[in-house]
Amino acid sequence: MALNETHDAGLQSWVASANTGSSDFPIQNLPFAVFRRKSSSEAFRGGVAIGDQVLDMAAVRDAKALSADVQAQVEAAAQGQLNSLMAMGPEAWSALRLALSRALRAGAAQEAALKACLVPQADVEYSVPAQVGDYTDFYTSVHHATNVGKLFRPTNPLMENYKWVPIGYHGRASSIRISGVDFKRPNGQLKAPDADPVLKPCNRLDYELEMGIYAGSANAWGEAVDIEDADRHIFGLCLLNDWSARDVQAWEYQPLGPFLSKNFATSISPWIVTLEALEPYRTAFVRPSEDPQPLPYLSSEANSQRGALDVQLTVAIQTEKMRAEGKAAEQITRTSYRHAYWTMAQLIAHHTVNGCDLQPGDLLGTGTLSGPTMAEAGALLEITEGGKKPLSLSNGETRTFLLDGDAVVFTGWCEKPGAARIGFGECRATVLPAHQA
Amino acid sequence: MALNETHDAGLQSWVASANTGSSDFPIQNLPFAVFRRKSSSEAFRGGVAIGDQVLDMAAVRDAKALSADVQAQVEAAAQGQLNSLMAMGPEAWSALRLALSRALRAGAAQEAALKACLVPQADVEYSVPAQVGDYTDFYTSVHHATNVGKLFRPTNPLMENYKWVPIGYHGRASSIRISGVDFKRPNGQLKAPDADPVLKPCNRLDYELEMGIYAGSANAWGEAVDIEDADRHIFGLCLLNDWSARDVQAWEYQPLGPFLSKNFATSISPWIVTLEALEPYRTAFVRPSEDPQPLPYLSSEANSQRGALDVQLTVAIQTEKMRAEGKAAEQITRTSYRHAYWTMAQLIAHHTVNGCDLQPGDLLGTGTLSGPTMAEAGALLEITEGGKKPLSLSNGETRTFLLDGDAVVFTGWCEKPGAARIGFGECRATVLPAHQA
Repeated sequence: MALNETHDAGLQSWVASANTGSSDFPIQNLPFAVFRRKSSSEAFRGGVAIGDQVLDMAAVRDAKALSADVQAQVEAAAQGQLNSLMAMGPEAWSALRLALSRALRAGAAQEAALKACLVPQADVEYSVPAQVGDYTDFYTSVHHATNVGKLFRPTNPLMENYKWVPIGYHGRASSIRISGVDFKRPNGQLKAPDADPVLKPCNRLDYELEMGIYAGSANAWGEAVDIEDADRHIFGLCLLNDWSARDVQAWEYQPLGPFLSKNFATSISPWIVTLEALEPYRTAFVRPSEDPQPLPYLSSEANSQRGALDVQLTVAIQTEKMRAEGKAAEQITRTSYRHAYWTMAQLIAHHTVNGCDLQPGDLLGTGTLSGPTMAEAGALLEITEGGKKPLSLSNGETRTFLLDGDAVVFTGWCEKPGAARIGFGECRATVLPAHQA
Repeated sequence: MALNETHDAGLQSWVASANTGSSDFPIQNLPFAVFRRKSSSEAFRGGVAIGDQVLDMAAVRDAKALSADVQAQVEAAAQGQLNSLMAMGPEAWSALRLALSRALRAGAAQEAALKACLVPQADVEYSVPAQVGDYTDFYTSVHHATNVGKLFRPTNPLMENYKWVPIGYHGRASSIRISGVDFKRPNGQLKAPDADPVLKPCNRLDYELEMGIYAGSANAWGEAVDIEDADRHIFGLCLLNDWSARDVQAWEYQPLGPFLSKNFATSISPWIVTLEALEPYRTAFVRPSEDPQPLPYLSSEANSQRGALDVQLTVAIQTEKMRAEGKAAEQITRTSYRHAYWTMAQLIAHHTVNGCDLQPGDLLGTGTLSGPTMAEAGALLEITEGGKKPLSLSNGETRTFLLDGDAVVFTGWCEKPGAARIGFGECRATVLPAHQA
């Protein structure tokens, strides 16, 4: 993939709200979601964000407002789940992006026809944008792995395999919920060191700041994806919160990994920013020279030079008290996806090296994206050193782990000189009290 | 659930092959699969086994051969995936079973109409009978956990949590294949103790003898299933082979559990034997008196008295040499599901205790069902003590782990005095050479 006319930072849209310079959704972004009008009984269908509007792709289809050569893509993007669009592959995605970019530009002949296809984002609600067949969660931040390792395994924080194997495990697809869907604090077995376990509401509820990567075109079962081709199998990215019950996790995770500590809820942001939109923000991944070089199937020149993505990420918390006081969510972390130890292409190459078949719409979580300093840590477990050092909020409250009523908000965006700023919107959910056990 | 007229051991069918006493599929069984004529381009649709025939449920629907009160179930059972049938719940399943039992009985008025709906099993091929939204694999045999624990963690074979937590993890739904689909030996990172890891074909390929449990009606997200109601959420069972790459597993599994060592292939038998058909084979689970009692959410009187299932299970291997010599597969293990440490109801109650939502068609693997002695061990890892003691086959061959060309065949059945013998058919697949890495 390369930069093309759709990335031109000078492009302006006839949708004025896209041209502010601060919108997450300028004409250089064009992310996809699945939406309908709030509290309506309309069918969910695909949409494209432009400024503060959603371009309703079902309306675009019905209006035949885009050229005939992208009709198949428009049809796929109009569906209530975007798996068919994801299955079409990068040339098809790219053609649709180009057609949308041209039609949404200031002065485009399609302005009148497309204006009728806009719905204000303020008026819509979203759903999970694909049928997620399988959800895999990785562990790509060496900083997170080290911080957490110290707490769970003081004598052996970073395992011997970490710098060789892009560690991952299977998550639960049914637990994925769209941003804005609140969830109950989970119940689970908790065990104090000197007592038998008991069933109780989780007492150490945490978030994990991640990105989600949607798989595009499938690979054949039994055939690995070469790292050089890996990007062709990625449709786009979103924000992802891998909510975690730390006390449940500590007791259950040996020897087969996390289970009930993770599968009660996973929140994702509604907008999928395509890999093509992110092209200006590709960057080098520099592996420390003292570290082992990745095995050949995880290595390529292109991957070293531009395998990483510089996505700025923040975590903010809004407590019930803040809401009562009319205060906005308070930022507690800012980091970037570029610190990840394993790139997207390495995740795809590793996931398929045994012949495992990725399907369009599969979701790969990056794992918690903590950066190298504590101000860049992506989970309370790290920030509070396992609950030992409470986090102080500016209104005088403190947190070790999340309390009922806490909302956690992630944002993500890319910006640099010479390129248009593009954003991911937000991923938000609030902790509700536990179900009576 | 209780015994009813469909379990009567004296029932005979007008399909003579169902009445031999040795068929897996007498009229007391009536399992479901999804099938079509071999090598045809017919649509896959649901079917019910009776003797050596398949009752084509799409043909039954078209012929309106069953009474109107089960029309919705017949329609659901005629689909190419059985999720809708699974979603209908136990009363609906039971009504369909009763209608099928009455219509297939010797002397039934429907004989002529249904005869036209039979297809010989010898002429059909099967597909995965449901869209498996999520696949969870448990670890319910304390014998397997102890045998394996000794090899992976000699000083700590059975973890402290084992007798409290029904340990499980998420598997990969896309890797599930129907019996008869062969698969390539996976490539993966292998690491010798004194060397860097390398990418190579797995050298320690193993099977795992399991049963698969299909979830029926869903639970609401955020609400746990009470153990007393758990059986209502189980549609039926099949045989399951959780193929495992032991060398890949040993290097990758810390700290998040098995991943590429398991997700290259999971084989299932085509026929789903319903929980109602298995009713005569419910049996007590007797927890050793020195073990901790399960927590209240994992405990009920009914579960203790009849939570276990006495399903006889065998593993057989047919090597390439045996095939060349015209020899049948050689049995190497015989055990029973009744030895499992955690019952089906406990798995459902545990999986949902945090509010995780089970969906119709979800598949729960039991984990390797090793019994208390080595003759009942469900994996080569155990039988050969981690590859140290080769298994001798009667034709002079030996195996530590599986070689290319080896077919592994599982069978399962239930029998006891006073009840009809019912079976699961077989779960079979052959190891193909690895894809060139």
